[in-house]
Amino acid sequence: MTKHVRSIGELGVDGIVRLLEVARHMDSVNRRPVPKVPALVGRTVVSLFFEDSTRTRISFETAARRLSADAVNFSVSTSSLNKGESLRDTIETVSAMGVSAFVVRHRTSGVPWQISDWTDASIVNAGDGQHQHPTQALLDCYTILDRRGVSASPTCLAGTKIAIVGDSRHSRVARSCIEAFGALGAEVILVGPRTLLPADASVWPVSTSESFDEILPEVDVVYMLRMQRERMNEALVPDLGEYATRFGLDERRWSRTRPEALLMHPGPMNRGVEMLMDPSMTSRSAILDQVANGISVRMAVLFDLLAAPGEGVPS
Amino acid sequence: MTKHVRSIGELGVDGIVRLLEVARHMDSVNRRPVPKVPALVGRTVVSLFFEDSTRTRISFETAARRLSADAVNFSVSTSSLNKGESLRDTIETVSAMGVSAFVVRHRTSGVPWQISDWTDASIVNAGDGQHQHPTQALLDCYTILDRRGVSASPTCLAGTKIAIVGDSRHSRVARSCIEAFGALGAEVILVGPRTLLPADASVWPVSTSESFDEILPEVDVVYMLRMQRERMNEALVPDLGEYATRFGLDERRWSRTRPEALLMHPGPMNRGVEMLMDPSMTSRSAILDQVANGISVRMAVLFDLLAAPGEGVPS
Amino acid sequence: MTKHVRSIGELGVDGIVRLLEVARHMDSVNRRPVPKVPALVGRTVVSLFFEDSTRTRISFETAARRLSADAVNFSVSTSSLNKGESLRDTIETVSAMGVSAFVVRHRTSGVPWQISDWTDASIVNAGDGQHQHPTQALLDCYTILDRRGVSASPTCLAGTKIAIVGDSRHSRVARSCIEAFGALGAEVILVGPRTLLPADASVWPVSTSESFDEILPEVDVVYMLRMQRERMNEALVPDLGEYATRFGLDERRWSRTRPEALLMHPGPMNRGVEMLMDPSMTSRSAILDQVANGISVRMAVLFDLLAAPGEGVPS
Repeated sequence: MTKHVRSIGELGVDGIVRLLEVARHMDSVNRRPVPKVPALVGRTVVSLFFEDSTRTRISFETAARRLSADAVNFSVSTSSLNKGESLRDTIETVSAMGVSAFVVRHRTSGVPWQISDWTDASIVNAGDGQHQHPTQALLDCYTILDRRGVSASPTCLAGTKIAIVGDSRHSRVARSCIEAFGALGAEVILVGPRTLLPADASVWPVSTSESFDEILPEVDVVYMLRMQRERMNEALVPDLGEYATRFGLDERRWSRTRPEALLMHPGPMNRGVEMLMDPSMTSRSAILDQVANGISVRMAVLFDLLAAPGEGVPS
Repeated sequence: MTKHVRSIGELGVDGIVRLLEVARHMDSVNRRPVPKVPALVGRTVVSLFFEDSTRTRISFETAARRLSADAVNFSVSTSSLNKGESLRDTIETVSAMGVSAFVVRHRTSGVPWQISDWTDASIVNAGDGQHQHPTQALLDCYTILDRRGVSASPTCLAGTKIAIVGDSRHSRVARSCIEAFGALGAEVILVGPRTLLPADASVWPVSTSESFDEILPEVDVVYMLRMQRERMNEALVPDLGEYATRFGLDERRWSRTRPEALLMHPGPMNRGVEMLMDPSMTSRSAILDQVANGISVRMAVLFDLLAAPGEGVPS
Repeated sequence: MTKHVRSIGELGVDGIVRLLEVARHMDSVNRRPVPKVPALVGRTVVSLFFEDSTRTRISFETAARRLSADAVNFSVSTSSLNKGESLRDTIETVSAMGVSAFVVRHRTSGVPWQISDWTDASIVNAGDGQHQHPTQALLDCYTILDRRGVSASPTCLAGTKIAIVGDSRHSRVARSCIEAFGALGAEVILVGPRTLLPADASVWPVSTSESFDEILPEVDVVYMLRMQRERMNEALVPDLGEYATRFGLDERRWSRTRPEALLMHPGPMNRGVEMLMDPSMTSRSAILDQVANGISVRMAVLFDLLAAPGEGVPS
């Protein structure tokens, strides 16, 4: 049991492994005819999304409901934050209504830590700025293990080569994945134009490459990042067409991967930019597995944070 | 059990009669002090409304909750569809979260069929373009039978004359009603100015009339359609005032109907245009019955699509 | 049991005392590990907010869910009211879907009464214009009693001096609080610039003061109202800075209050205007108690309106 899930670093290897094991149980719940357990009856989980993300919000709310918690959407656009109320006042107020957990997304790095100073509720970081998106990284780890039929352990990804392709410099998904994949023993290669590779890549145990074609035949997982159109406006990418030519995944490139390599993408895909093939054409695409496993992993996170001490994992 | 409810034609007479019979049971559930049954615990029903319609959405969500399903509103305005994600990707993604049924409204005809290619979930068409709105037609059939105390059967509306008044050319409600009323044996007369009568009326077994006053004394049901203001902009109706004079229902006209004739309207009413009297002044208005029966009929549809095989209808 | 909770006046002293007693039971429900009771299973509570107020809406919806009612948010901005449908038609339509209670907020005084003519459902006024906000006043009474460990009775606030500071002229909170505090025996002093004191203060048993500093040392409760920026535009307050100097609460002023005086605010606070200190610095701030007690009081209101006759209060 932890108090918050805000970053992969705070979880540590043990936390990651434990959550992946709980997620395995939740997965079996989700395969039942009635995928619902009473574990969190009476707990309230509030989604507090300062950036729109219907899919992530629905994933968390579905996870909450399957554990029988009440899922409340605090719509920021219509809230008192627009009437001059401070973020702190809003958190303290909603918190006083009896909230067990806040699921927070915000465009500014660090907001989930700030919020935890103002409430006794647990905080789940659903994406803060360019910093962290830990449940995405957890569901990605889960998906790789699940595809391979391997159990979670501190070395379960040892010997696995994972290419993260695209704008790893500005991506919270990349940051969380680098740490989580690395913590479980994987070797991570960041692929992209120099302007989109982290300036500080050397602080992680990763290698980098500016040639997608070169690393393609060597990796076990091709993890494509969403290319944000803003990057073009910022002149970090001269032209999306040229980007697509160098770093987009098309069928020709896909045909050069290892026979058991997996295709992953955190969504939403930018078709015609980084995704030039139809992933549903290959049985090695795990993209929809990622979405489905997202429910199990988020159930694991909420259960771990909110279940009464001593309450057994539903099995 | 069918897989989808997308059009009256796909249901056929047997499907219509079966759903009306199940709706009768749901109606009795709704009259209980606690109008809730556990039939669909653990199923998730997602509303996917590309056109706003709070009343139809709430009707479906209420129906889902009374069967103990989880009702999730996928708000299109804030979704990734605005970030360049394709409709197909959105459907596949939400679907991967474990959705049992999508309730879809879209301004383009045929979208519910397109969507069913991309998901294993059941599709309920809650209105597609000018094409179909099958649950509206089912609740209209149910309402006529219920008012008469008659059971559903393939001939239960035989001998019944129904005038559908207004813009039947552009109305999905009219299209679905024409087919459903006709399937159960009713005689349908489309009433309106020539510009608003279907160009292809001859493909249906309907007659048409440009004189509301002439057909009024002969019919058993006066079914008023909502007059859309857009029609005036398109120059199909010269003037709403003139339209109201010729095809609006006022007390004088209503007084000329048969003593047992029913008044119906799918809502929302355009008062001062097609509705010039207060329907609550006549006990023969079935307009609020339509709304109430909508819950029972939509419960029947969701139950029929989603209940476990062999699960008995709650009675 | 009453039919509606629309104003403090309609409730009367007996109604206020009864609801405060029921709220005490609900408070104990809310302190349980699983704060949920099945009292209102199958009832539907519809929030109908014509003015945005996420916090009040969430408070009511949380209260409804803890009693196991279904909470439905009827979003006015996307409803048929924008398609020319009358408010009456909307109410009758939603009502026909089987609604037990409407929770209504509207910028026009009297709307909750108008709505009760059109539906058999119970109406809870969640704020109408500058008129009433009865659940706010109830939770304020509850909070004072709870802080003192005193039970509700027709004289439970006798001898208590309460200063309501700010724009009492335009405030529905002030109107409801004046009546509720007065009904339970308190002495109320309205404090503010002449332009923001009620023109008709003499109709209530209240006194008024234009000097915050003068009354500060005498009162048991300092109830700060939110200062609306509109007032400055209307030239009723020359300058918010000057207003803050005369009527804002800062630490210096707070240090001059009685040792057991309470600080209250209905939220959202306008920091830098009426609130110049950080209320979390004093243990005598009851502001977050107000929020928490709001759940218990609204549970009491919904239970009182909707529970089956003879159903015992959950204890």
